[in-house]
Amino acid sequence: MKEVIVGVDVGGTNSPFGFVDSEGNILGKGSIKTSDFELFEDYLDALLIEVNAVAGALKDVSIKGYGIGAPNGNYYTGSIDNAPNLRWKGKILFSEMVRAKTGLPAYLTNDANAAAIGEKVFGNAKDMNDFIIVTLGTGLGSGIFCGGQLLYGSTGFAGELGHTIVIDGGRQCGCGRKGCLETYASATGIVKTVIKLLKERTDESSLRYADKDKIDSKSIYDAAVEGDKSALEAFEYTGEILGKALANATAFSSPEAIFLFGGLANSGKYIFESTKKHMEENMLNNFKGTVKVLPSGLKENTAAMLGAAALCWNEMNK
Amino acid sequence: MKEVIVGVDVGGTNSPFGFVDSEGNILGKGSIKTSDFELFEDYLDALLIEVNAVAGALKDVSIKGYGIGAPNGNYYTGSIDNAPNLRWKGKILFSEMVRAKTGLPAYLTNDANAAAIGEKVFGNAKDMNDFIIVTLGTGLGSGIFCGGQLLYGSTGFAGELGHTIVIDGGRQCGCGRKGCLETYASATGIVKTVIKLLKERTDESSLRYADKDKIDSKSIYDAAVEGDKSALEAFEYTGEILGKALANATAFSSPEAIFLFGGLANSGKYIFESTKKHMEENMLNNFKGTVKVLPSGLKENTAAMLGAAALCWNEMNK
Repeated sequence: MKEVIVGVDVGGTNSPFGFVDSEGNILGKGSIKTSDFELFEDYLDALLIEVNAVAGALKDVSIKGYGIGAPNGNYYTGSIDNAPNLRWKGKILFSEMVRAKTGLPAYLTNDANAAAIGEKVFGNAKDMNDFIIVTLGTGLGSGIFCGGQLLYGSTGFAGELGHTIVIDGGRQCGCGRKGCLETYASATGIVKTVIKLLKERTDESSLRYADKDKIDSKSIYDAAVEGDKSALEAFEYTGEILGKALANATAFSSPEAIFLFGGLANSGKYIFESTKKHMEENMLNNFKGTVKVLPSGLKENTAAMLGAAALCWNEMNK
Repeated sequence: MKEVIVGVDVGGTNSPFGFVDSEGNILGKGSIKTSDFELFEDYLDALLIEVNAVAGALKDVSIKGYGIGAPNGNYYTGSIDNAPNLRWKGKILFSEMVRAKTGLPAYLTNDANAAAIGEKVFGNAKDMNDFIIVTLGTGLGSGIFCGGQLLYGSTGFAGELGHTIVIDGGRQCGCGRKGCLETYASATGIVKTVIKLLKERTDESSLRYADKDKIDSKSIYDAAVEGDKSALEAFEYTGEILGKALANATAFSSPEAIFLFGGLANSGKYIFESTKKHMEENMLNNFKGTVKVLPSGLKENTAAMLGAAALCWNEMNK
């Protein structure tokens, strides 16, 4: 029997999970549809049934605990607090209910923090004590390690770089404020930028013929590869905003590396090079050349489940 | 014999030191003039001679080690690296040389970090794991505790909030860049603000009759107490810039409290109220109402020596 933790990646649409051993191997996988369940209790019952079904089919695994990565997840309380992209409102006592129903240890943190723990335990940050992971998806999430510890802060919500205000009175953010970093530096943000640029510029662009609702970071990337000027300028502008924010983040915690992750990070050199350039240009002298900007060592679709499982392994070894 | 650490507060002009016991009592004090010494070796010899003279006069103290707070001090290397306000250029291996000359443990960190350690060990942050201390003097220094540890980062230079860029293309900073927080939120910054306001405004102000070189944060405070509109607006503007920066800092590390310290913090409600107001207004919902803005529990003139001594006590107890 191989000992595993169930790592659950709670997303707005799906909740994939994996059986993760202490070396980070995923011995089995499953998934349920998050959005099918109006009530959290029903969701959790379905999740545990599916976990047991997959475990039964595998035969040789022994489940030792649960690690959960979730939007607006709070490590201290083990709860999901008012997550805008989930149907369950208020405070959902996720890990407490898993413990009650399974009798096993259960730990929860937010999805970006889970990815950071995954990077530390199984990815490219194994030997790093100070690093930041930035997920560039629909929003911008971040998980921050300082002195070898994940930063939770007094509330459990530390590491919200996506909601630092970078342009006073800037773009409207889903959080209700204006000018948050994630309204510019995210898969959604670069789409807004390219649509604005297409209006301002007059040169030819394949993106002009696309349905505006269909433009995403992948189609902007494809256009950039073809030399599209609006697409290239959109990457340059996004990298400028992100690079400046990362220079400021460096003045805060002086990380050894910053990992870019998620949909927009898949644009490779287009996002990495502009981000690095503007980060270095805006860096205080003491920090110039001290911060690597790197791709994640984890696959995007398994990072959160690996990290969530690593959280549980870590807690059980404390 | 009472065991003490010598806490040294290396300033550009003077280097006061104190004999600090493990409870934070200062059993004796002395000082030498930093700026008298072109060579660091001569400075250090003079410092140790003065320390021994004061110790001899006290008779009943036993020196167990040295803690040093210094501008551009690096905890990892125990050195002062290219401090612009000191005469000694390059890398000064301060703690290594103290160890060599005295045979005692010696530890060094920068002055704002020393103040943060002092606040944690002897001040108002004894029960806090996550807090930030902001010193509003000639510049803006900061020391950041995360999860009970002082944040040094990969370089040892973490916690440079004064050099986060808050206004793109803003005021020229001594670091060579533009728009750094300390060009606005510091004793020097508010003087620049009030001089600008006096040019823009036409109403009566006692500050108009002052020699511009003599205006300082104290005279702006005195004018504010008299209801001077330019002075009041200068505090409001300074608090706006600082409050917004602290809202962003909260999104990073979610501190339980932020301590304001140094010359400008002595302006009491004038700086505290505007800072708190703008911080709360610009805070992400999750953090609203979670951060206290407090005065330091340490006296300004002894904070760095107490903190430096506390650093050494901590290291010796590791």
